[in-house]
Amino acid sequence: MIRDTAPANSHVLTILPQEDKLEIEEGENLFRFLVRHGYSILSSCGGMGSCGKCRVLMHKGLKPPTESEEVHLSQVELDQGWRLSCQQRVSCDIVLEVPRIDETTQAKELLKHELHIALDPGMEKVYLELASPGKEDQRPDTLRIQEGLGVERMAFPLSVLRKVPRVLRVKNFGATVTKEEDRALDVESGDTTGALYGLAIDIGTTTVAGYLLNLNTGQVMGVRSQMNPQKSFGADVIARIKHVYEHAEAGLKELQEAVVSGINRMIHQLCQTATIEPAHIYKVTVAGNPTMLHLFTAVDPRQIDHSPYIPVLRDGTTISAEELGLEINPEGRVYIIPAISGYVGADITAGVLFTNLHQSSKLNLFLDIGTNAEIVLGNRERMLACSTPAGPAFEGALIKHGMSATPGAIAHVSLSGDSEPKLEVIGNSIPKGICGSGLIDLIAELRKVELINEKGKLLTQDNLHYAKRVTLNEQSQPQFLVSDEDKPIYLTQQDIRELQLAKGAIRSGVDIVLHEWGAALEDIDVVYLAGAFGNYVRRESVLRIGMLPPFPIEKLKPVGNAAGQGAKLCLLNQGEWIKAQELAEQVQYFELSYYKGFSDTFIESLYFKGI
Amino acid sequence: MIRDTAPANSHVLTILPQEDKLEIEEGENLFRFLVRHGYSILSSCGGMGSCGKCRVLMHKGLKPPTESEEVHLSQVELDQGWRLSCQQRVSCDIVLEVPRIDETTQAKELLKHELHIALDPGMEKVYLELASPGKEDQRPDTLRIQEGLGVERMAFPLSVLRKVPRVLRVKNFGATVTKEEDRALDVESGDTTGALYGLAIDIGTTTVAGYLLNLNTGQVMGVRSQMNPQKSFGADVIARIKHVYEHAEAGLKELQEAVVSGINRMIHQLCQTATIEPAHIYKVTVAGNPTMLHLFTAVDPRQIDHSPYIPVLRDGTTISAEELGLEINPEGRVYIIPAISGYVGADITAGVLFTNLHQSSKLNLFLDIGTNAEIVLGNRERMLACSTPAGPAFEGALIKHGMSATPGAIAHVSLSGDSEPKLEVIGNSIPKGICGSGLIDLIAELRKVELINEKGKLLTQDNLHYAKRVTLNEQSQPQFLVSDEDKPIYLTQQDIRELQLAKGAIRSGVDIVLHEWGAALEDIDVVYLAGAFGNYVRRESVLRIGMLPPFPIEKLKPVGNAAGQGAKLCLLNQGEWIKAQELAEQVQYFELSYYKGFSDTFIESLYFKGI
Repeated sequence: MIRDTAPANSHVLTILPQEDKLEIEEGENLFRFLVRHGYSILSSCGGMGSCGKCRVLMHKGLKPPTESEEVHLSQVELDQGWRLSCQQRVSCDIVLEVPRIDETTQAKELLKHELHIALDPGMEKVYLELASPGKEDQRPDTLRIQEGLGVERMAFPLSVLRKVPRVLRVKNFGATVTKEEDRALDVESGDTTGALYGLAIDIGTTTVAGYLLNLNTGQVMGVRSQMNPQKSFGADVIARIKHVYEHAEAGLKELQEAVVSGINRMIHQLCQTATIEPAHIYKVTVAGNPTMLHLFTAVDPRQIDHSPYIPVLRDGTTISAEELGLEINPEGRVYIIPAISGYVGADITAGVLFTNLHQSSKLNLFLDIGTNAEIVLGNRERMLACSTPAGPAFEGALIKHGMSATPGAIAHVSLSGDSEPKLEVIGNSIPKGICGSGLIDLIAELRKVELINEKGKLLTQDNLHYAKRVTLNEQSQPQFLVSDEDKPIYLTQQDIRELQLAKGAIRSGVDIVLHEWGAALEDIDVVYLAGAFGNYVRRESVLRIGMLPPFPIEKLKPVGNAAGQGAKLCLLNQGEWIKAQELAEQVQYFELSYYKGFSDTFIESLYFKGI
Repeated sequence: MIRDTAPANSHVLTILPQEDKLEIEEGENLFRFLVRHGYSILSSCGGMGSCGKCRVLMHKGLKPPTESEEVHLSQVELDQGWRLSCQQRVSCDIVLEVPRIDETTQAKELLKHELHIALDPGMEKVYLELASPGKEDQRPDTLRIQEGLGVERMAFPLSVLRKVPRVLRVKNFGATVTKEEDRALDVESGDTTGALYGLAIDIGTTTVAGYLLNLNTGQVMGVRSQMNPQKSFGADVIARIKHVYEHAEAGLKELQEAVVSGINRMIHQLCQTATIEPAHIYKVTVAGNPTMLHLFTAVDPRQIDHSPYIPVLRDGTTISAEELGLEINPEGRVYIIPAISGYVGADITAGVLFTNLHQSSKLNLFLDIGTNAEIVLGNRERMLACSTPAGPAFEGALIKHGMSATPGAIAHVSLSGDSEPKLEVIGNSIPKGICGSGLIDLIAELRKVELINEKGKLLTQDNLHYAKRVTLNEQSQPQFLVSDEDKPIYLTQQDIRELQLAKGAIRSGVDIVLHEWGAALEDIDVVYLAGAFGNYVRRESVLRIGMLPPFPIEKLKPVGNAAGQGAKLCLLNQGEWIKAQELAEQVQYFELSYYKGFSDTFIESLYFKGI
């Protein structure tokens, strides 16, 4: 599976029905690419070609089916153009359709597909051809606009008042008003009603994702994902808050400016590609964890990092773009999606909104795994949430050859018999390290071949499978050679310990939430796995290492960047924004670290039980 | 009446019941001083001691009665401490009470006097002793505040969010919230509920007046009046707009910065004197003519100065103090009082509000005379307004020895027989020139002694009274020697012409409004004369020169700085602010310059008819 030729050039990928247009490198794996760009796509094998779920309908760029596709798709499906996205290596421009995920998200996907029904962004543009003033008509400019719109009262912000007299007279009192309820956000000369855009942002600790949407049609005009520039101040939320402790106001300002300027760069790139004016973006919805949103708004996050973990803000709030320094229309409104608690943030609110957990009669579990794992269990009657510190192991930190899920990372591993480990590397390049999903696969596979025991010890007996790959390092600790294609990549005993702590934290969180609710495993209808992690990771491996209780594998459903999708919902429909607020208020949060049985459950969860 | 000794030192003047404290110079005339500082005080002789109306109740600083006081006040009144303010020369600290003006303003004055009933500024401070967070209480800071206030939803502006976590923890979660409806304007450590202040401002073309009020009690904490710093860019609105034509955006910005920095200086002086923090001012109400308010907000005024005279804004609007650059609490709200048309502004709306014309069953006339004269005629059923360009003659411009109503200006003139003209000079100093009220008096008196004929010609016949004071200037035009105490001060034939144009414009405006309404003179109940002009001017003289139709003199009522008083009403009571908006919408404006019979009426009005 490994190729060492660099991608030659790039192609255009068009995704229907939204007509998103993305640039994609020659040779890219389509499944990985879609996941990385926040598309929700089913998969349980993590792109190994073995589950047959990551199907897409190819409208352009169709190639003869692979062996795996012939196994998983019927002849009729193949003839229609269905293919498995994990089997596609890009070599030309592609137009394709991503099918909806499942019944629960069907309504949401429908919303995305049939936007003429549900599109209600809370703002609109109206073109007016007003009468020119004269001796018989001395109405002030603003009253002329109000009467043109047929509204009794209208608030005009100062920046709009200041442009009104000039703008009205450029095209003989033909002008377009952008309004949000009874507030004028903009007045422009001539008819610009076609240019009404919005941006949904998910500010992750590691990655910032942005979706540019046309608020007249619901069409996605562009998607971008980039590193959170705050990473240079520290990899995780604790390190970022530490920066505020050390540099107070100035440090807070630095962190805000970093993320805001990163988002501004993203805005300019999105607008340039879509050939629209940044000033025509009037609405932004923002999801993110509480620390990220405190830093984005330059609100002191220092009370979040120590007991009793108090954020300043929980409720949703709106702020003017100019006040935040976002380079869109200065009167554009920035909607900060409500959070649930100091560690369960707007990203979770948005994700739950997207999965529809809050409106389901069935009991569902929502999991977002990163440095912290956030867990929401509930249905339309009641929701329970907690957060558990998984540590940075899944993001590559503290792991000897760990790295983030970027090109060169080993994302999947299969071991069988004593053959070479079968590796899948992001970007199809020489392996440089192991990312979270690779680590989980590797340890799960090593457990399968019994080279790791129940307590997590890497065994050194010569009679075991792969025993030759196990050596002792300078500290006489055992290590497993994963690859030596370029440089040797090892999994160390210490790495396994780090993973045990991480998976133990998640497992104990899930067990305790289920216990608190009084739910048995069989009561759970769906376990949503949010985030890139949920898409990349092989569900079999997750279950094998015991990171989750033994759910039937088909109940585990990856939902991609659920936070970004939820932010898009709030962008397109003001009702969803209100629902997000209600949802956030309904969820009962409980602090896992105060939970009496926590230590017991945690220690219990460290071991590798049941293969 | 003229003294040439300079004031030696200053005293404190306390005005009840508001307890305003003002600094007053030794030797100042109390009537003049009160008028200049925006107090509404009755007078029909303009401070000559002949009408007996400018009475005040002296609580401290009482002196034996003057001859005039013995004529106009009963022994009981004298014993109670009643005196005529025009008879008081300040020589010690004074405490006094200014009585209410008349029945129409009684309700308003009552409001001022009994503020515990009508005080409703639309914002309040609430002190909260909140529970500290703990394991059992992880509520976010803002939710803690909301629940402390017992409100479901609360908007926290970014600047407040940014201080919340620090402020709450300074005094162990004892904090004061300043709120306006469901919006938090401020959060402070400890109990600051006593510190809730507001500012009413009247931005005149010449003068800016400011009133600092305690919004908890209604008490006036200080009053200041100062030159509008924009005067250096031009004396009148036309000159200021010309500056914008010549320098576009930069010129507009310059004019805004001038007035805003002037107001900021005033704020700091008022706060220093009253020993309060500018950050404790949370509400500002602003009256002013349309050009002044466009310039104050840096909104382009250029469409106002030419037909069809279109302002940008008419409706009332609120703007954040920070956005305007006012140095009060950054989240403080600035209420711009609504205007009626491009030339009938917020000052007139506020003035009419103060006189209660809009709620009266009787028909009243409201006149504000400056460079333009604004005229409102109406009752609670219907109101009609127009504006007429009186020109700058009343403010001293275009008059040979004209000057504004500042120390050294001849404010009043009496002629009788052939004795020396009896002059009253502002500040009791050597006369340096003539201000508007002096000019009107002088011409009225010259008409009385028949030295000016009906057509406005200054006569030169030797057999007339004062004939010796009439000489010919270098252009062989006749001129009247008013004073030669220091340098000779003349009234020229050209000066009389200027006054004729000014009074003709006003008279024709009033005549046309009455005609449009279909009202006869006897239908009018009260003629309110707003502004310093209305207080200074002698009503007899106004009638004698025919500036107004021949109303019975007792119907003419000066109401002082009605605009400032109206702004105070809006500051103290949110209901008055709403009434101001309704009032502004109800007034029908008509453009005098488009009126068909205007030229005829105007020419007719130029002559001096009926003595």
